[in-house]
Amino acid sequence: MRIEDSPSPAVDYSRVFSSAIDRLHAEGRYRVFIDILRNKGAYPNARCFAGHNGPKPITVWCSNDYLAMGQHPAVIAAMEEALHDVGAGSGGTRNIGGNTHYHIELEHELADLHGKEGALLFTSGYVSNEATLSTLAKLMPGCIVYSDELNHASMIAGIRNSGCEKRVFRHNDLAHLEALLAADDPGAPKLIAFESVYSMDADIAPIAEICDLADKYNALTYLDEVHAVGMYGARGGGISERDSVAGRITIIEGTLGKAFGVMGGYIAADQMIIDVIRSYAPGFIFTTSLSPVLVAGALASVKHLKASTVERDGQQAAAAKLKALMAGAGLPVLPSTTHIVPLMVGDPVKAKKISDVLLAEYGVYVQPINYPTVPRGTERLRFTPGPAHDEAMMRELVDALVEIWGRLELRLAA
Amino acid sequence: MRIEDSPSPAVDYSRVFSSAIDRLHAEGRYRVFIDILRNKGAYPNARCFAGHNGPKPITVWCSNDYLAMGQHPAVIAAMEEALHDVGAGSGGTRNIGGNTHYHIELEHELADLHGKEGALLFTSGYVSNEATLSTLAKLMPGCIVYSDELNHASMIAGIRNSGCEKRVFRHNDLAHLEALLAADDPGAPKLIAFESVYSMDADIAPIAEICDLADKYNALTYLDEVHAVGMYGARGGGISERDSVAGRITIIEGTLGKAFGVMGGYIAADQMIIDVIRSYAPGFIFTTSLSPVLVAGALASVKHLKASTVERDGQQAAAAKLKALMAGAGLPVLPSTTHIVPLMVGDPVKAKKISDVLLAEYGVYVQPINYPTVPRGTERLRFTPGPAHDEAMMRELVDALVEIWGRLELRLAA
Repeated sequence: MRIEDSPSPAVDYSRVFSSAIDRLHAEGRYRVFIDILRNKGAYPNARCFAGHNGPKPITVWCSNDYLAMGQHPAVIAAMEEALHDVGAGSGGTRNIGGNTHYHIELEHELADLHGKEGALLFTSGYVSNEATLSTLAKLMPGCIVYSDELNHASMIAGIRNSGCEKRVFRHNDLAHLEALLAADDPGAPKLIAFESVYSMDADIAPIAEICDLADKYNALTYLDEVHAVGMYGARGGGISERDSVAGRITIIEGTLGKAFGVMGGYIAADQMIIDVIRSYAPGFIFTTSLSPVLVAGALASVKHLKASTVERDGQQAAAAKLKALMAGAGLPVLPSTTHIVPLMVGDPVKAKKISDVLLAEYGVYVQPINYPTVPRGTERLRFTPGPAHDEAMMRELVDALVEIWGRLELRLAA
Repeated sequence: MRIEDSPSPAVDYSRVFSSAIDRLHAEGRYRVFIDILRNKGAYPNARCFAGHNGPKPITVWCSNDYLAMGQHPAVIAAMEEALHDVGAGSGGTRNIGGNTHYHIELEHELADLHGKEGALLFTSGYVSNEATLSTLAKLMPGCIVYSDELNHASMIAGIRNSGCEKRVFRHNDLAHLEALLAADDPGAPKLIAFESVYSMDADIAPIAEICDLADKYNALTYLDEVHAVGMYGARGGGISERDSVAGRITIIEGTLGKAFGVMGGYIAADQMIIDVIRSYAPGFIFTTSLSPVLVAGALASVKHLKASTVERDGQQAAAAKLKALMAGAGLPVLPSTTHIVPLMVGDPVKAKKISDVLLAEYGVYVQPINYPTVPRGTERLRFTPGPAHDEAMMRELVDALVEIWGRLELRLAA
């Protein structure tokens, strides 16, 4: 039935759906996807299509391809080779026709990256979180999950879908986490789920101290490193490598779609946990496996970033530079200890307006970050400078922001 | 904490996980992924690696790349062009940096394929089912979902995660479905969720009759066409195109990873529904979008199969031939009205044994299908002959099966 054909005044489907959309417009958070294509080899340059005063060239400031590895010659060459060697898709689930030698090699590489016995690929980081958390907690009757309040939507979905008890602890608050752990039955299975780098606030979890609490209260630990893998640690193993705590974490989760520049997600853990998730998680079992083309590209990217620190160093330098320039201009940049540069606006309509003006008038592409990605009232712009964003680009960006800040009568620090 | 380090006898994590694995071994349904690579341009030929008496060449009989489009020159060329034009990954969510012109073009193409106003891409068919069903039902307070008992795991996950009321109707049983619809409050929002081609039983739903019931009881309809898109209908629009009922279905869901040969999933529907799912589904919003390389390949594949029927015709002929040969040899092939050829075994250990012998001794790769993919006691082998499986290959396969049937003292029909 088409929704407008409903014969019953009792259930007017059109009205249900149109009012859901109207709520988004009313709150200023209806999302318009902008139509772009990057120019390979010339990142952060790209093209935008109709709308936004386009078609015209633009500069991308909000990609999670933090190190431009999606453009790296070794990655492109590996994908091209796989494309010609085995073809486009895997043709099946990992169990039925869709397991290839590339998948097995990449899992070995990722296990090695994190110093774990095994690893398991998923079609995305979202799916790896949802499938692993929901399955793990379900396999342990009476399990209680302790979840940082700023955990990503995919972790929240996994915990909720497990149906187990959940305790939310205040962001990075060890005392609150310990109070919650201490209040529960010592005989109950426990799992602490958190991230290393929080993407929207750009801060870092106290991993070692959380592991101390896990030891004290006999809890497993699940660490989402999606914004850190490839970016931190001598070989790109993430904050857990940088802080030498990877061996204390039960499960490390990562993505192939941000610093590694391709697509897909994974977990790394003891072989027994890998085997359990592989055998019980519907989101792993019942889905066509990653295209071998993507797997080959990710394999080249992980290998490259294990050996090369040029990209990480360049990115960190660019982020530090941009933060200093923004702060120097009085722009409300959040105090960030990471590679991400959040600029606070605090209003969804203004955040969208700034983004629109940047694109239409300055050729600068940065998205507004609105609810539900961040809490209401903390709407912001989020910049991800990479090794290829030079100082001239940054100065142009900061000048543009200062002009728009004045135009919208927003406050600049003295 | 590593799982073996647990200090508490009260919670022995190792024991919990090892007993979960032991259960699989005890039931003969522990899965071993075989390590293969296809040979592009020579499908169904492939190579298997260590184990299975390999390394050696094998013939793949269980791929869901039904039409070998994953090897098609137009698909490979489109992917190569995108790889060189824009790079490996999309670099972000659809809303934040990961929307490209390829995504928009493919959504237009898929909307056109199904005669709908709009379409929306997901990272997989699994995610499209889970995200759409869970979000849709949540947006309609008091919604009741009517679900065919053989629906795919991803649909079951979406319905369960919506938290709404669910009624399971007997497989393709119109009388049972109507009885359930009639028993519920006429004022409650209703959604009937079903598939067109059921992959494991290889039968087809009575779509028009289900639409009649939907009209009568004012219910929305959700049709999973993942095993039918590209395969049925003049332009590959699926069974709903073949039966001229696409216009009566509220939401059609499909995959890019089976007949289209690449990877990813989608829905097609009225623009308002697309907009609602795009705006509210966490599994769509909070994930890196499909790699533009995959999108470009899928676009080429969909376009090709809209115009060409050679692949569909060749596949149907191959399936009919294999079914006839198996039946002629007395093998227990299921009565199938589709392109899939299920051979009933009815025992998980024997199904696995047959598959192992075929691979080790005959170089034939077909997976056993065990619980939870099919109900216990209905374990089977599932063959998917394609246009490139010739009659000589089929005769060799049938001879091998007859030999193994005898060796395992299984029954052949007279």
